[in-house]
Amino acid sequence: MPYPDQQNILHRQPPAASPIAASAPPVFDELFQAKFAQLVAWRRDVRRFRADTVKAERIDALLDLVQLAPSVGNSQPWRWVSVESKEARDRIREDFARCNAEALASYEAERAIAYARLKLEGLQAAPVQFAVFCDLGTDQGANLGRRTVPLTLEYSVAAMLATFWLAARSVGLGVGWVSILDPARVTKILQVPANWKFVAYLCVGWPQEEHIDPELVRHGWQERTAAGRVVITR
Amino acid sequence: MPYPDQQNILHRQPPAASPIAASAPPVFDELFQAKFAQLVAWRRDVRRFRADTVKAERIDALLDLVQLAPSVGNSQPWRWVSVESKEARDRIREDFARCNAEALASYEAERAIAYARLKLEGLQAAPVQFAVFCDLGTDQGANLGRRTVPLTLEYSVAAMLATFWLAARSVGLGVGWVSILDPARVTKILQVPANWKFVAYLCVGWPQEEHIDPELVRHGWQERTAAGRVVITR
Repeated sequence: MPYPDQQNILHRQPPAASPIAASAPPVFDELFQAKFAQLVAWRRDVRRFRADTVKAERIDALLDLVQLAPSVGNSQPWRWVSVESKEARDRIREDFARCNAEALASYEAERAIAYARLKLEGLQAAPVQFAVFCDLGTDQGANLGRRTVPLTLEYSVAAMLATFWLAARSVGLGVGWVSILDPARVTKILQVPANWKFVAYLCVGWPQEEHIDPELVRHGWQERTAAGRVVITR
Repeated sequence: MPYPDQQNILHRQPPAASPIAASAPPVFDELFQAKFAQLVAWRRDVRRFRADTVKAERIDALLDLVQLAPSVGNSQPWRWVSVESKEARDRIREDFARCNAEALASYEAERAIAYARLKLEGLQAAPVQFAVFCDLGTDQGANLGRRTVPLTLEYSVAAMLATFWLAARSVGLGVGWVSILDPARVTKILQVPANWKFVAYLCVGWPQEEHIDPELVRHGWQERTAAGRVVITR
């Protein structure tokens, strides 16, 4: 694939002696199942990070693991941009500030007051930050499964991100998904190929706190649905 | 929300004494982390199911758990349609056959031969089948986080589905995500509200086999990328 800055792209194989290369199917017992349910319950969108750095190997291990996430036609269309320079981070924060001010202006009365009080990102403090894109130009998968539902390519990136989120939480790392950014400006700031579609901006680091209730419940924005799941039958 | 068939909708609360209601943050040790990596590695898109039925309580437990999946603004926009009647299943299979024939016709030579050999769904055998939609009309979340990236609502459904997939695999259940369907026809067949957007059709059941390599690798369609992950730095 003709990336504009081929020399800047890191291609890495997962380690050959990975524990996931085991040949016999693993057994997931009830203890694991219960613990996995706890992992799902305790995953949070984290916006408050400690200053401590995160070792590169930890992040690499997560990126390697999520190469195994589901994707349509085995297309693996996710592309990572590690946002590290002060300039890039400053410009992302400026874009957030602009988009967030516009969002605030769209609410009225009590909703506006409540919105203004929310902490919606950890862009200042998060030691590791990624913009995640979907490569709309990829040939991988040869379009299998995408013909009638083209968004399956973007959905693959979202499904990978859910996997990343849980994997990060399992090693104690917090992840915040920031969507209050202008995709066109993020794409310009980060100078990515034109057919990479912005999906998410991630803040990653050690969380200041752990709690089971979502930030938006805790701060009075949106309770979980009282109705529980919605299922209809046909 | 004004559903056309309110009486047919099952609203259910998760059990109050759920293990996930624990107050102290759980500890995820290295053993769990390794097992979780195995779960990610051994999740498969399953198309070959045993005839055995799946108890309703198992499915209910999965649906309850994934209510805790991430969603933009805590919007929880996923809507489940349990496809149970012979008529609905027959019509879904007919739609798949039509869409799959069109997909086959789009490939040439060896690719067409390879495509024709693939088994891409388990619609005949899967005991449990869901069409999963995104409720574009939901007020929940009050639009938080959706202003600049409206697709975050659909991404929330995809992220929930990744969580469902892993949770199902952890209890031994296989899930297949079928996207070779026409969204407009599925919506019509299942008579869902007009603002529900089709995201995925799931086949769920006990798998005939367990393997670590994806079906599309095993049957020569698409290897995992040899390059591994793609990361650029800014």
